[in-house]
Amino acid sequence: MTHLENNTSNILEPVGKAAKEASYSLASLHSAEKKAMLLALADALEANAPEILQANAEDCREAKAADVNESLHDRLLLNPQRLAAIAFDVRAVSALPDPVGEVLDGRILDSGLSLLRRRVPLGVVAAIYEARPNVTVDVTALCLKTGNAVILRGGKETARSNKAIVNVIQNCLQRLGLPPAAVQAVTSPDRALVSALLHLDAYVDMLIPRGGSGLHRLCREQSRIPVITGGIGVCHIVVDASAEQDKALRVIENAKIQRPSACNAVETVLVHRDIAAVFLPRLAKHLGALGVTLHASDKAMPYLARQSFPSLAVTPLAPGDYDKEWLTLDMNVHVIDSLTDALEHIRLHGTTHSEAILTESMTAAERFAREVDASSIYINASTRFTDGGQFGLGAEVAISTQKLHARGPMGLDALTTYKWIATGDYTIRE
Amino acid sequence: MTHLENNTSNILEPVGKAAKEASYSLASLHSAEKKAMLLALADALEANAPEILQANAEDCREAKAADVNESLHDRLLLNPQRLAAIAFDVRAVSALPDPVGEVLDGRILDSGLSLLRRRVPLGVVAAIYEARPNVTVDVTALCLKTGNAVILRGGKETARSNKAIVNVIQNCLQRLGLPPAAVQAVTSPDRALVSALLHLDAYVDMLIPRGGSGLHRLCREQSRIPVITGGIGVCHIVVDASAEQDKALRVIENAKIQRPSACNAVETVLVHRDIAAVFLPRLAKHLGALGVTLHASDKAMPYLARQSFPSLAVTPLAPGDYDKEWLTLDMNVHVIDSLTDALEHIRLHGTTHSEAILTESMTAAERFAREVDASSIYINASTRFTDGGQFGLGAEVAISTQKLHARGPMGLDALTTYKWIATGDYTIRE
Repeated sequence: MTHLENNTSNILEPVGKAAKEASYSLASLHSAEKKAMLLALADALEANAPEILQANAEDCREAKAADVNESLHDRLLLNPQRLAAIAFDVRAVSALPDPVGEVLDGRILDSGLSLLRRRVPLGVVAAIYEARPNVTVDVTALCLKTGNAVILRGGKETARSNKAIVNVIQNCLQRLGLPPAAVQAVTSPDRALVSALLHLDAYVDMLIPRGGSGLHRLCREQSRIPVITGGIGVCHIVVDASAEQDKALRVIENAKIQRPSACNAVETVLVHRDIAAVFLPRLAKHLGALGVTLHASDKAMPYLARQSFPSLAVTPLAPGDYDKEWLTLDMNVHVIDSLTDALEHIRLHGTTHSEAILTESMTAAERFAREVDASSIYINASTRFTDGGQFGLGAEVAISTQKLHARGPMGLDALTTYKWIATGDYTIRE
Repeated sequence: MTHLENNTSNILEPVGKAAKEASYSLASLHSAEKKAMLLALADALEANAPEILQANAEDCREAKAADVNESLHDRLLLNPQRLAAIAFDVRAVSALPDPVGEVLDGRILDSGLSLLRRRVPLGVVAAIYEARPNVTVDVTALCLKTGNAVILRGGKETARSNKAIVNVIQNCLQRLGLPPAAVQAVTSPDRALVSALLHLDAYVDMLIPRGGSGLHRLCREQSRIPVITGGIGVCHIVVDASAEQDKALRVIENAKIQRPSACNAVETVLVHRDIAAVFLPRLAKHLGALGVTLHASDKAMPYLARQSFPSLAVTPLAPGDYDKEWLTLDMNVHVIDSLTDALEHIRLHGTTHSEAILTESMTAAERFAREVDASSIYINASTRFTDGGQFGLGAEVAISTQKLHARGPMGLDALTTYKWIATGDYTIRE
């Protein structure tokens, strides 16, 4: 096969081949059939809760013995409530509009051909993610909803849970007369399987990494499959001289504190010099009281005399801090001389994720929107809105910070492609 | 810089950095400014024809001395007429509608945020292509039209021509007050530069290979930059039992003969068994007279007794022929028992490029359109229509056979992405 002979033999070849075969069946399902499939799947997860929870308990026991940190353990843990919430989410996905089949555009060509573009499933999607069994179900639901087969590779700590979940899903598919290989998990701990998966481009149409920047980098560097990268968010808020300062404090608080570990949380605030003397001490006081540590640049520090706010609230900025995704209650502050200065700072240190300006100046707002290169740009709003749910997409497949295919929050559409369909009367090209 | 520290040092780093810088200027040009820029560029190419033609003459002399084949020499050669045609094409691109700035969609969110998606340039595009100096100008025009900077890597045989062309372009940009680094060529013959270019993901947003399957494979395997692959077209025409046979002959002739070297030319014809005894001899006679050699499968051969058509018109199919992109006046023929049989054959041997069925059956046509996984599907038409111009896209950036970002013929849109712009009243996420 021409498009296969490019690859040397791959240990995951049978997995890829089975997924591709299954994808043909999924692609011909109607919306109502896919909806029924997801509802049956949610029921099956609940009906088989004991076997899933038992496998998860073993994963958790082993993780505890290996002394994993608290947050990993929390992500790993399933209980009846969480499993019910997972099933609830599957039912929510089942109710979303199906993008497949939509005609994007069409026309009659000069040649007389009638041409249209029809939205179709991608085919086979692969996902690599951390030790979160809920992602196993979430990605499965999104892929099946859009008629795609999926190959799952979760964190090694969750191997038993994933095996149990996928077992339930495959049995459910079989009962419905659908190919079980539509959903497959690669659960063996062998690290070589990740490389093998990244080289499965003969069968896999799209790779979604869900995890930290290291995973995204690995995928970008090694994957032969087109990959959606993202994951790193060094987000800025620019406080222009004209900003309403009381409201600005509220927005920065929201962007930093509501969920500091999110990739759309703010990491650096750039304050215009004309208001620095007033605004920076207010910011330090306001956020200091909420437990935030400000990392102040040389230009910001002079405005931040210790006496006016909690003693631990300010520390000098260290080299590299501008490029850190803190994900904690730490935040850089810096003073800018102009909007041009702010734009340059963001180009140097931003990750094209989410960038905000707080301003009353139309000119500044318009220039910021035009000149900042980022997936999501905010005028007088918190960076925390970069999210599929907040953007009204119904579901979130991932957040992309690259520019091909999809940018920013990705909805179900991003799990589809299109085909051109041309109908003629034995039409030839002159 | 966070998104740069991922990369170890790269010898093309200064090229990438300069291109990224230039891309910011290009992104803020208005449509009228970009149009004027391209018209000035076309004028400059004509005004500096002597220096371009002289460099090209040296390239051609060296190629001749190295005994390159006729077709490479023809692709390499520039003369006053060809240069005028190239300038004409630049003026045609200048006149196309500018996709940048288009608002794709928008809404007011529950949070009160006003959200819209605005189409913007990708940023920096890289192109790797063969020894065709016209591609240097073509890709430049398409990228500048859409506000993108471009890094060009043409075949080594055309190094002097490319250097001269890019020199003219850079001088023109400088005269217009635009950054010359908007268009850069990597002309040194050092092969390591190709690897370096493929690892320039810190600066380059999209890679377009234009060339044969080997180049596309190299890019898919080694590129860290998102890449648009395509290039291989093993295209099929299925002749259903209900097809109008006279017209079918005309369509197959067109798909094979009009330009055999094109990726959308047909390579294999699959004939339904119910008409094989009548249609196959007619096909052999018709195409044999036009110089086509049929490579007949075991199932097709019995219908192709030698006496009825030119003696060289039929030869037995060899192993691997089904997977060959002939690009010549050779064509495989095979007999299928059913549409299911044909669909399976196409899945096994197709390259998801262009696939056609000739039929009077609505049921067969509809099933073919739904179940064949290809960029372009034809009902009663030649596969030769898969082309940006034929599809009414105005320009053709490339033909993609992968599924992310763009599929099939790519117009100017494919050189853009979008950004989300959200405007609020100091809006926070609850």
